[in-house]
Amino acid sequence: MSLKMNKLVELSGVPKATILYYIKEGILPQPDKPKPNLHLYDEETLERLDFIKYLQKNFNCTINEIKTVLENQKIHNTSNYEALLDAIEIVMGNRDQTHYTKEEAARYLGMEESFLDELLDEGIVFMRDGVLSQKELEIVQIVMEYHSLNLDIELFKTYAHHARELATLEVAMSQKLLNKESKKATIKRLFDTLLILKPYIFNMTTLKEYQGASHVRDTQN
Amino acid sequence: MSLKMNKLVELSGVPKATILYYIKEGILPQPDKPKPNLHLYDEETLERLDFIKYLQKNFNCTINEIKTVLENQKIHNTSNYEALLDAIEIVMGNRDQTHYTKEEAARYLGMEESFLDELLDEGIVFMRDGVLSQKELEIVQIVMEYHSLNLDIELFKTYAHHARELATLEVAMSQKLLNKESKKATIKRLFDTLLILKPYIFNMTTLKEYQGASHVRDTQN
Repeated sequence: MSLKMNKLVELSGVPKATILYYIKEGILPQPDKPKPNLHLYDEETLERLDFIKYLQKNFNCTINEIKTVLENQKIHNTSNYEALLDAIEIVMGNRDQTHYTKEEAARYLGMEESFLDELLDEGIVFMRDGVLSQKELEIVQIVMEYHSLNLDIELFKTYAHHARELATLEVAMSQKLLNKESKKATIKRLFDTLLILKPYIFNMTTLKEYQGASHVRDTQN
Repeated sequence: MSLKMNKLVELSGVPKATILYYIKEGILPQPDKPKPNLHLYDEETLERLDFIKYLQKNFNCTINEIKTVLENQKIHNTSNYEALLDAIEIVMGNRDQTHYTKEEAARYLGMEESFLDELLDEGIVFMRDGVLSQKELEIVQIVMEYHSLNLDIELFKTYAHHARELATLEVAMSQKLLNKESKKATIKRLFDTLLILKPYIFNMTTLKEYQGASHVRDTQN
């Protein structure tokens, strides 16, 4: 199926100027040009536009982040929503190209390597392809500040513990979904679940608990 | 303390053009102009710039979302990071002005009101100021799709259960923090914890579990 620009605008709901901008930025493919005044877009362009909208709406992705997701997708030869599995890492802030070994990170942060090992063992921070990114350093810094206030890091260990329990259930649920529908539909649904519904429940529950307790806002100044 | 533009640029690390753009957009206050060629910025402007950078870096906030956060802050007369408590709601996607009563939402989604009540009781969706926003409708739709595939919603009930357990610990931790440091420092730290560290642990754990299981990517097509 080949689409003219008008039809693409109509079906995607994305304005022409935006589509042309995406092509210029390389996140949409160039159209077929069988004649100088005839530009034809294929169905994949439409699907890609939906995916770009999804990334923008749900993760506020910038054009550069979308580029990174799409490049990753090309390398691994995966479908749009499948690329979201890689996208978690990018959305999670692994944007920076600076990477550190464990030794470098410990030195940089002025901490004992054994403490970093503990955080890795506990599942509070994670190596990515054998190294630590800027994001991990940021996380370790948040933890170290608690440490320097003489507060224990039980809360973070508890996060890690709960996170593992839930991850097991999530993988089991994805298997159930795969028995019901196509791989593509499953992956889309998983990301709705993991990246939209799940943070909603956790954030709103925390918010309501604070609003109920009003610890922070009202009892002290 | 009054700052000239050069000093503000130096201390904030934000380029002059960006600062002027923020002023034009109304997210930074106009400078004092004691003489036509002398523009002076106060310390609050510097603090506000840090806060804007924080929102952009960690939540990819757009200028419009930052405007909403700052307007909310003005209404409730709260400090920058304290406004983050409201910001959760905005970052969570309560951007839309369309709101629904329970009855309207059930009718709109073509569902039994009793099912919606169940989701509210379970802590899977939440009323906001007595109504449901577009975000809640989106969440309910994700849940309904599972329902229509004859899959149980145990996973979501489990999310809600874990979320409540963690929220209790978080409120307790915030009380400990308040005993150690100022309210302002506590609120900044809580948001580092709740909105940066916590999603990191949950998302990375899920990602690693999937990569380990490779259910989705490799075992089926």
